[in-house]
Parts: sequence; structure tokens; C-alpha cells
Amino acid sequence: MAMDKTTQALWLPVTQMKDLEEHPALRICSGKGIYLYDAEGKPYMDAISSWWTNIFGHANPRITRTLAEQAARLEHVMLAGVTHPPAEDLARRLTTLTPDELTRVFFAGDGASAVEIAMKMSYASRRNTGHTEKRRFVGLSGGYHGETLGALSLCGHDAFSDIFRPLMPDNLSVTGPDCYRCPHGKTRNDCDAECFEHMEGALEKHGREVTAVFIEPMAQGAAGWRFYSPRYLRKLRECTRHHDIHLVFDEIAVGFGRLGTMFAMEQAGVTPDFLTLSKSITSGTLPLSVVMTTDAIYEAFLGDFTQMKAFMHSHTYMGNPLACAVANETLSMFEEGNVLETNKPKYRHLANHAALRFADHRHVGEVRSLGFITCVELVSDRATKTPFDWRLRTGFRIFREALKRGVLLRNLGDCLYFLPPYVITQDEITRLVDVAHAAMVEILGE
Amino acid sequence: MAMDKTTQALWLPVTQMKDLEEHPALRICSGKGIYLYDAEGKPYMDAISSWWTNIFGHANPRITRTLAEQAARLEHVMLAGVTHPPAEDLARRLTTLTPDELTRVFFAGDGASAVEIAMKMSYASRRNTGHTEKRRFVGLSGGYHGETLGALSLCGHDAFSDIFRPLMPDNLSVTGPDCYRCPHGKTRNDCDAECFEHMEGALEKHGREVTAVFIEPMAQGAAGWRFYSPRYLRKLRECTRHHDIHLVFDEIAVGFGRLGTMFAMEQAGVTPDFLTLSKSITSGTLPLSVVMTTDAIYEAFLGDFTQMKAFMHSHTYMGNPLACAVANETLSMFEEGNVLETNKPKYRHLANHAALRFADHRHVGEVRSLGFITCVELVSDRATKTPFDWRLRTGFRIFREALKRGVLLRNLGDCLYFLPPYVITQDEITRLVDVAHAAMVEILGE
Ligand SMILES: Cc1ncc(COP(=O)(O)O)c(C=O)c1O
Ligand SMILES: Cc1ncc(COP(=O)(O)O)c(C=O)c1O
Repeated sequence: MAMDKTTQALWLPVTQMKDLEEHPALRICSGKGIYLYDAEGKPYMDAISSWWTNIFGHANPRITRTLAEQAARLEHVMLAGVTHPPAEDLARRLTTLTPDELTRVFFAGDGASAVEIAMKMSYASRRNTGHTEKRRFVGLSGGYHGETLGALSLCGHDAFSDIFRPLMPDNLSVTGPDCYRCPHGKTRNDCDAECFEHMEGALEKHGREVTAVFIEPMAQGAAGWRFYSPRYLRKLRECTRHHDIHLVFDEIAVGFGRLGTMFAMEQAGVTPDFLTLSKSITSGTLPLSVVMTTDAIYEAFLGDFTQMKAFMHSHTYMGNPLACAVANETLSMFEEGNVLETNKPKYRHLANHAALRFADHRHVGEVRSLGFITCVELVSDRATKTPFDWRLRTGFRIFREALKRGVLLRNLGDCLYFLPPYVITQDEITRLVDVAHAAMVEILGE
Repeated sequence: MAMDKTTQALWLPVTQMKDLEEHPALRICSGKGIYLYDAEGKPYMDAISSWWTNIFGHANPRITRTLAEQAARLEHVMLAGVTHPPAEDLARRLTTLTPDELTRVFFAGDGASAVEIAMKMSYASRRNTGHTEKRRFVGLSGGYHGETLGALSLCGHDAFSDIFRPLMPDNLSVTGPDCYRCPHGKTRNDCDAECFEHMEGALEKHGREVTAVFIEPMAQGAAGWRFYSPRYLRKLRECTRHHDIHLVFDEIAVGFGRLGTMFAMEQAGVTPDFLTLSKSITSGTLPLSVVMTTDAIYEAFLGDFTQMKAFMHSHTYMGNPLACAVANETLSMFEEGNVLETNKPKYRHLANHAALRFADHRHVGEVRSLGFITCVELVSDRATKTPFDWRLRTGFRIFREALKRGVLLRNLGDCLYFLPPYVITQDEITRLVDVAHAAMVEILGE
């Protein structure tokens, strides 16, 4: 490893750096619309919207203009005891887009920070009202909420969290929905969320000490886009009410139209006590995260300053005016472009064309779609739904093959998925699916 | 609280929201240089650089241009398995500015996220090399490292962390330096860091289970700018080496010239195993944080992918091209402007003029300066160094008084401090100090 220290300084996340010798990193120099370009000008279709953020295309001129104008006016000011129009406007607009009960908006930067804020707000509201016995949190198997230690303690992914258990608070993980391998032999469209029994049992047993349940509504992203029935969320809302437990919807990945509705919770008709947002809120431009909550929570923090009830949590750049201005522009683009409607024929085509291409392949376990996400789960054996040995890196090899062909797919294990910017055209969707299919056939045969 | 939900949606950090009825938030609409402007165009001098971030002035034209250019080229791409020139350049440039041993650069967004990454890297490197007994962390009383639950467990501030103890990992807090109230009767310039005895004892006792010590080198910011002797850091380096403990310097607040040297550690001539940076790295424009570390740490994560040694941690926007481009421009402005030299006469004037104005007042306990920070600690009784009753909110009242006079001072308890953007002029420094002094006299008398 005795190389010039200045040549190899950058350490990439979630990457075995030794692997780069064999599978070099993609070097991206520019972007335009749904395409990213390397130094030679070769285009790569951004099929997963740069980790589920981009919705209106790279280097979007409206975003660029907004950034430049806001930077010339006010690039940043701290938010402690200070407000500014972009943050005020954004807070107001978010409350009009969400259910009436969500009246309060607290800002942060990273998505994980928003999750930590929701944890701390939930617990501190108990403290301020004399219920300190409620101090544990519940997450679901397959759930993902970010990787700072608090957020990580809510994640149900061994690959991310197992080795860090000794550092983390001891929270509860409950078996969540897994519709492709439903133990009750149902499908996500005709079930009664029988799998809720695990949560029901856990809250029955531990409800007294639980302050909040964290869940990604309608779809667990990092688990490989596991979609599940809205009935699960309705049962969860009822059960958390019964046990006086806060319900936190983490829509960091799915908010802003990704699942077809502006927010995923609309599909269940359920309102949480906390809502976390990030990613597409800035059209995929720069970090901004948000925690929304109710008057009931907010009021638990009001009092004379000598009572020391104020919510103590800050990040330096919270409410960054640049990020807020871009988020406001994003919301304007939604309004003016009738985006949710325009997306419909596109994602129907995505779902149909992917089903056509992939569904009958002997290594395709399931092709599932919800809104603007289609996911293809690969298995070693369709009949038994047995996964491939992970050491074969099947998904990874297909991702590398698609990359050669100009499509950036970045797999989640053996799930290939399509989550493109909304500005993709139907023809580009056809090409995306066809290229991914050809890459799969190259690796797995016809 | 039955108000229209859209009018009062924004929840400000570290603020008793009820207080705003009596002490309304400052509403800032634009900025230019060291000034922030409200809706009526009234200027406020940004005397603490918007939480210690801004160095080259608000709405700096070079920064605006850089942002606009980068946004038109590539606003963002995920960093997993992907690199891009702004991140590569920034990583390389940071390694040339720091000691030779710091060769590796890992990005995040919020400062707290960088601290959590250093925690997880330190522990995971132990795990990967078979030393799982090293799983605890040490922080100092008065230390501040951010407020996600992991970072918060390293903080030595009861106001931030006490109520959250039940949620946090159980780390060690060691009594740190407090030179104004030195228990050995020394001064920070003529001591041998006798107070290191606490750390020495703690590491002697717990060293086997400790993986890393986190410290803000040379100055504890949130504690009220407590400056301390570089000898403390030299002893700490020796002692952590002896016990095979990683040393983490958190320069999030002081990096990039704030204490007179580019990095605070230079004043002690000590190199840590991890360095965290944020805040001024983007000139105070948008969030970006960094963890730097050594080849020794990096190599603990290399191996065949089947060994699962890769460092698992991500944030969606890590290595954001906009933020990296602005950081690169910030470094260019340092090089071209000879900033560290140009700052010297300015901060000497700040220190001298503040001493002249404040030092003799009967409620001033200490006026202390290091680099471009001068801090005035107010006390009820100079002789006994007895603080004011906190419920009097002495510092806060002076801050509100200065605000009326067009200076944004935001106190830390009963510490007033001056930490202006580097582009402030000597005349503006004079005015800043004079206004703060007048505000103090208004509240406390002559
Ligand atoms: C020394 C230090 N570390 C960490 C942090 C946390 O950074 P952030 O507020 O961006 O989370 C701060 C913020 O003030 C700090 O001063
Ligand atoms: C549902 C969900 N929550 C939280 C996070 C964490 O956000 P960040 O990566 O910005 O820390 C993610 C990121 O992918 C996410 O998908």
C-alpha cells in the first residue's frame, strides 16, 4: 500500500476498496437529464437516480438558477433564534402537502440525522410529560433508517449493524412483512397483513417501555424494495395508539412521488406522529432532511425557559437557505408540471415492460412494481425461492455488465431495480429494461 | 396554540419556542460580507460567523460562481463505487494540507455524522483485527462533538446530553482542562498540563476496553471557548499510544485557520489517528463533513469481499459535488489570499481591543484569545470566579441588547465571544467590540 498519498486519498462508502483493483470505480465528470458522463463523454443512464434522489434530471437548469440566485442573496445563516424566508416557506409548504395533524417542521442535513431527531423528540416528549419508562424503540427486520449509531439501532440489516451491536442502544427488532416469501401463503394484494402478528405480540409484551415504532411506509427500500400491504400500516396505527406509542413514518426514500402518491402514507390513509423526509426533497441536488410532527409533540416542549423543556438538538447547517430554496423550487416543479399524473403512463410502461422481459426467466423469482420503482429479485431456484449463494455476487456481476453497456444499475444484493429520474421517456425506459435484461442474460444465460 | 398551521410551522433548534413571543426570532433575508440584513434592510454584523462557519463573507461572488458552474456541470452523483473530480481533488488537497500520516479521506454531510463515522471506523478496525474488547470511547467534560446519539455520548455537557442518557451507549467522560478555573493555580501558558492526571488515570484504569479518545484540540468551543495548553495534547498522544488507543481530533469547529494555524493540531505538533472536519470547509455555504485517517486504519478494512471487512457506512449525499467544489474553491482562496498571514494583525487587534474594553469590568472574569476568537467570560464575582445564577440569563440579555444595536453575538451561556468572518476589517472589529461593550454596560452597568 506504499503509494503516493495524494493519488488514492478518496475512500468510497460501502465499497471493498481492494475490489477496485479488479472493478474500478466509475468516474463521472458531468451529468445532463437522466445521463451521467465519464471523462471520455461516454453516457451512463442513472437508473437508480443516484441513490434514489434525483427526480428532475441532472444539471437541471431551474435548479441551477435557483441555487445561483439564492447564493447571491443569502447562502447560509444559522437557524438558532434566526429564521429566513426559504426555511419559512418550505416549512409552510410541507405542512400544506401533508395531513393536517403534521404542523411542525424541524430541519437537519443527513437523513440519519432526521431519524435521530425523531428518536430524541419522541423520548424527550415523554420525559417532559413524566413518562420516562417509555425509552425503547422498535424497528422492523429489513428496515433501514441510516447509519449513525442511533438510527442504526433501528435497522434490521445484519450486514450494516451486526458488528456495531456493542456500541448501540438495545432496541427491539420485530419481524416485518416479506411478501415474496409470505409465510401465510398470501399475496400483498389479497392479504389481511397476517404478518402483523409479530408486531402485535411485541407491542403487547413491551408496549409499556416503547416510545416509538419506526417504519418505512409501503416499501422497505434497502431490503430490496419489499412492497407490502397498506393494511399493515392501518393495523400498526391502531395498535400504536392503543399502547400510547408514537408512530414514525420514514419517507426519506419514498417521499415526493416515488411510489405514485406524493407521500407513501397516503396509500394507507394513515397519519403518523412523526414523518422524516430527505433525498428527493432537493431534487437530488444537496443534503437536506426534515422531521415533521404534531402540535401534541410540539407542546410538550413549551414552557418557561427555567423549566428547561426546549428540544436540545442542532446541526450547524440545519435549514441551510440554499437547500431550502432548492426544495421550494422542487415543490414548484411538482405543482406546475402535474408530475404525479405525468408519471403514471411512464411507470406503468416500466412495470409492464420489465414483467414482459424478466418474469419468465428461470432465475427471476419476482418482478414487483409500485409507482416509479420496479424490482427484479433473482433466485437460484424459482420453485423453492432459494437465493443464490451471496459469494457468487450475481447481482453485482449483472450491475458491472450493464455498466459496460451504459446503464448504472447498482444492485441491492440479488435485486436489480429500476428507479429512474421522473424525466425519463418511455423509449428510454424500454432501453433501460432491455439493457438490464441483456446484462442478466449475459451472466445467467437465457 | 390553535393558530393557523401554516403560519408557525418552523421549529427552531436549541430554542424555547415559547420565548419567541417575548424575544422574537431575527428574520434574515439577505447577506453580504460580514453583514446579514432583515426585511427592512437593517444590517446585523455576523459576529460569530453563523455558528463558526463563514470565513470569506456572505454571498461571496467566488463561491456563488463556483456553485453555479458546478451545478450546471454535475450537481450530484452518489459516491458508492463512483468517483468524481471535485471529491477526488478535495481528498487529495486535504492530504497535502495535513500531516503525512493522514492519507485517507471519507466524506459525510453533518458534522455529527463525521464523528459517528470515526467512532465506527475505530471500533470496526478493532473488530477486523480481532480486538473486540476495545469498544468504549472517551470524551472530555466540556467537550462537544454533535448530537446524534453516538456523538452525544462523547459530549461533556449536561444540558445537551443528560436527559438522553438512557438512550446512549455508556461511554467514559473524563475531567478536561479548565484553565480559567485551574485547580492547580496555573495559567495555560505556564503549566505542564497537570490536569492531564484525570485522563492518565482513566486510561490506566480502562485503557484495555477503550478504542478511541475524542478531543477538540486546543479549544473547547461549546464549553465557552476554553483554550488550553498544547502540552495536554502531547501528553494525550503519548498516553494513547502507550495504551493502543486511537486519538481523534475533532477540528470541526477550529479547522481552516480559526485558531491562527490552518489546523489547531499544528500548535501541538501532534498527529491524531483520525481528524474530523466540517463547518468552514465550505466557507460556511453548505454542509460537508470529512473524516481523515491513516493507512494503518485503512488497511484494516482491505480484504477479499467474502471476508466482509469493508467499512459499512453511508449517507446519501456524501461527497456531494457542489459541496466539494465549494470546498476546493475555499482552499484556493486560502492559497491565493495568504489568509493566515492577513488574519494576524486583525485578530491581534481583536484581542487587544477586547482586553482594553472588557478586562477591567467588575463582572468580567476573563478575556481570552486564541487566533481569530476572543471570548469574554462574565461572572457574578471576579474574586471568587462565581458565575451568575443561570436564570438571570445575563449573556442572553446582552446578546439581545447587542442585536438592537446591529450586532449578532449569540452568547454561549455567560460567555460573549467574537468569532467574525476573516474578511472583517480592523475598523469593523473596533465597532464590534465597542457595541458588545456598550450592550454589556447597558445590562450590567459600568
Ligand atoms: C467540535 C464540534 N464537533 C462536532 C460538531 C457537530 O457538527 P454538526 O452541528 O454539523 O452536526 C460541532 C458543531 O458545532 C462542533 O463544534
Ligand atoms: C428510509 C431511509 N431512511 C434513512 C436513510 C438515511 O439517510 P442518509 O443516507 O441521508 O443518512 C435512508 C438512506 O438511504 C433511507 O433510505
